[in-house]
Amino acid sequence: MCKSNRIIALLLVLLFSAAALFAGGKVETVDAGSQSAPVEKAKYVFLFIGDGMSLTQINAAEALLAAQQKSSTPVKLSFSRFPVQGLTTTYSANAFITDSAAAGTALATGYKTNSGVISMDPNGSVSYKTLAELAKEAGMKVGILSSVNLDHATPAVFYAHNKSRNNYYEINMEMANSSYDYFGGGMVRIDKTPEGKKSAHDVMAERGFLIAGNRAEFEALPASTDKQVYAYGKGFAGNATDYHIDTDKDDISLAEFTRKGIELLQDNEKGFFMMVEGGKIDWACHANDAAAAIGDTIAFDDAVKEAIRFYNEHPEETLIVVTGDHETGGLSLGFAGTKYDSAFDHIANQKKSFEWFDTYVLKPYKESSKGGSLSDLLPKIEEAFGLADLSELEMAQLEDAYTRSMGREVARSKSQDEYLLYGGYEPLSVTITHILNQRAGIAWASYSHTGVPVPTFAIGASGATFNGYYDNTDIFTKLTSAMMLESSLAAIK
Amino acid sequence: MCKSNRIIALLLVLLFSAAALFAGGKVETVDAGSQSAPVEKAKYVFLFIGDGMSLTQINAAEALLAAQQKSSTPVKLSFSRFPVQGLTTTYSANAFITDSAAAGTALATGYKTNSGVISMDPNGSVSYKTLAELAKEAGMKVGILSSVNLDHATPAVFYAHNKSRNNYYEINMEMANSSYDYFGGGMVRIDKTPEGKKSAHDVMAERGFLIAGNRAEFEALPASTDKQVYAYGKGFAGNATDYHIDTDKDDISLAEFTRKGIELLQDNEKGFFMMVEGGKIDWACHANDAAAAIGDTIAFDDAVKEAIRFYNEHPEETLIVVTGDHETGGLSLGFAGTKYDSAFDHIANQKKSFEWFDTYVLKPYKESSKGGSLSDLLPKIEEAFGLADLSELEMAQLEDAYTRSMGREVARSKSQDEYLLYGGYEPLSVTITHILNQRAGIAWASYSHTGVPVPTFAIGASGATFNGYYDNTDIFTKLTSAMMLESSLAAIK
Repeated sequence: MCKSNRIIALLLVLLFSAAALFAGGKVETVDAGSQSAPVEKAKYVFLFIGDGMSLTQINAAEALLAAQQKSSTPVKLSFSRFPVQGLTTTYSANAFITDSAAAGTALATGYKTNSGVISMDPNGSVSYKTLAELAKEAGMKVGILSSVNLDHATPAVFYAHNKSRNNYYEINMEMANSSYDYFGGGMVRIDKTPEGKKSAHDVMAERGFLIAGNRAEFEALPASTDKQVYAYGKGFAGNATDYHIDTDKDDISLAEFTRKGIELLQDNEKGFFMMVEGGKIDWACHANDAAAAIGDTIAFDDAVKEAIRFYNEHPEETLIVVTGDHETGGLSLGFAGTKYDSAFDHIANQKKSFEWFDTYVLKPYKESSKGGSLSDLLPKIEEAFGLADLSELEMAQLEDAYTRSMGREVARSKSQDEYLLYGGYEPLSVTITHILNQRAGIAWASYSHTGVPVPTFAIGASGATFNGYYDNTDIFTKLTSAMMLESSLAAIK
Repeated sequence: MCKSNRIIALLLVLLFSAAALFAGGKVETVDAGSQSAPVEKAKYVFLFIGDGMSLTQINAAEALLAAQQKSSTPVKLSFSRFPVQGLTTTYSANAFITDSAAAGTALATGYKTNSGVISMDPNGSVSYKTLAELAKEAGMKVGILSSVNLDHATPAVFYAHNKSRNNYYEINMEMANSSYDYFGGGMVRIDKTPEGKKSAHDVMAERGFLIAGNRAEFEALPASTDKQVYAYGKGFAGNATDYHIDTDKDDISLAEFTRKGIELLQDNEKGFFMMVEGGKIDWACHANDAAAAIGDTIAFDDAVKEAIRFYNEHPEETLIVVTGDHETGGLSLGFAGTKYDSAFDHIANQKKSFEWFDTYVLKPYKESSKGGSLSDLLPKIEEAFGLADLSELEMAQLEDAYTRSMGREVARSKSQDEYLLYGGYEPLSVTITHILNQRAGIAWASYSHTGVPVPTFAIGASGATFNGYYDNTDIFTKLTSAMMLESSLAAIK
């Protein structure tokens, strides 16, 4: 008998194992979460998290791109064209509807925790080791990027451990003292630094971080350095970067932060792990502003494209995973009032976010005028939102909202509830986006998150392990497995 | 050199081909719709279509099951546990938001057409050959099943060709004259038979169909027959079967129709193709009745379980695909008023559908009483919907709706729109389900369909070809490919 027969036998086993993956087993024992596609070592790993981004957010962006490009079919985002796509449940340890802290903890540590907790157990007594910490211990370089402030829940779960997402000072001290190589995106909340304490910026400066706080400093950063880097932008309304639709040439985009990350982290024998959060998709959805949400979804996709460019140079060793942490806003691509019609060009006409309008139009107007009327603002509303030719009903809604925004009482029917109408936002701005979105055939059900699962997309090494319908904690397991990290299950720190 | 080396080489090629499937290619050229998983001949093919069923409908059912079973995590439906799961776009040739006719035509023929058209081109001049016709030509047995009337759009696209879904008589004549082996579910609209013409029932009787119109006749059907079979149930409110939550022992469930189909069709050398529609998921979602929608989703899953039982006996030769044709209602698993809270037990307390309430409570009440008040009905509302302890706001909403349902005018604020509130349904019933759903943390955005993609699940032979993010027309292509039908692309009849 030929010696090669043993090799044939081995190959047959391997081949049938591969074939078995496709056939599926008995359904009682099949769980897509434990589907066993082959694990291929991923040296360069990108985890993109669209905060508040589920299927409707992605599809809304694709519908808007189609409207802009006069295409009769949705124009897919880059990650929608990835060969692998799964569905992911998002519930937290204590709620069907998660918050970003618990959802992020699941992704970063593989553990369910309570909403509000940063990479600790529900009681806040045990710290969980994060994917990024495991990667760093294994010699990988680590980058944490976000369009919101870098000590906000989603980026924080990758480096911090705290019983509350609101303990900003403690969280940004963990960031300042971390060993990670690159932080890029929004500014940490140094305004939360207690009297007499060092700020995170002070600590990072002492520890030798290269710090860039504007475009000039960002562009002056070296292409490669042994130092830790902290690059931040700051928007007109806070520590996050601006909504993408509000940005100008001074703003550093998530794609630019990502490109810089690739530059800084790639020169490393053990590779890198980079988490990139599109954090303001969520914030726009909370405010029910579809154009701002879609703008930030497209900006997020632009960041993914930077990773794809890198993947195309290193296809065997790179893994890109794109997911959401939960859905925000109960976004629907249909509205009772428009029935089967859609008109996404209404969204395309919106030039500025609700936040820009609040900051640059409504705030100065409120400060300067106490006795005006809605008609003062209609030209500005048309300019910023493309909203004109108002129906009687729309005018009535805006009049009520204007009166409310000006701090005056509104005579209103008993069946209308202040919170349902405005959700705590500027009544005028949220009414404008509601009207505009409804004209487009888009509706919102909430100013909070919802419980619908999110899609997860993947390409590259071990990519096929992300097919199926699984839990957000499984993403941690699949990633540690692809990265062949020592801890294949969540670790206690 | 050993002779076996050529075998080794061949096996290596096969193995690396299999491995390549997982790695993915350059992203610019990757399209998940054209992902090439291995094609394995499927002899027994089930296509389950949840009408109006997208991700939120499935997840709502899983959340309700969790509430009923006191589980802290969603209890997955059987098809949610399939190893393969993809996402599917649903737009029609002329609209981002499709109807069931165009969506069904895409699934059945691989062609996009306009909303309202049954397996023809948008002008209604060219007939497309359907998957079921191709299967029949190839010697497979064919079964068409639905919980709605069998000449409604989704079942019709598999056997009929008409420029309008509303031409019921022409459509049910195509059914009566078809060569398919088994029709099971709702009754065809023989009430649409023109004066002096034969009804579909007459034609089928003449052609030798075995016809069963109630449980006794259904149970008397033979286990195997060479004759064509038409088995129908009829609900209290029309030609469709009852909503699952309203059924009693006289009603034949979709699972029973499916089991009978397997019995009738399986004894055939060339196998079978069976389409099973959960049609009333859509109808319940149009009416914004979450409990009825979830009840029918679970009944649909029970029908899938019959197929799984068959699959477990013939795993190598069976393919089960479960998809939706579009989303209905803009269902959201979150609501502004409940923020991050969910309370699905409110849904669990609902015992009857809006339709049952309309038929058995509201209709007789309206006929008997012209001068009553809402309080007459509150005990009945509590009994049917489990709705009690009404807040002032909820009482006000019900009072308005009651007044409306009784045909009286309501004094209402200018910002409220009749259609947005009631969508053409009985104002009282839809207000009851809105209140109940919102208490549970569930909201609806529309009384029509929406444009969000649907998930598609698969198990069995060629199952892996259903991974990825593709269009509804691709499902036709993937199915004809799995069935190895002569026409691998859509055919003109």
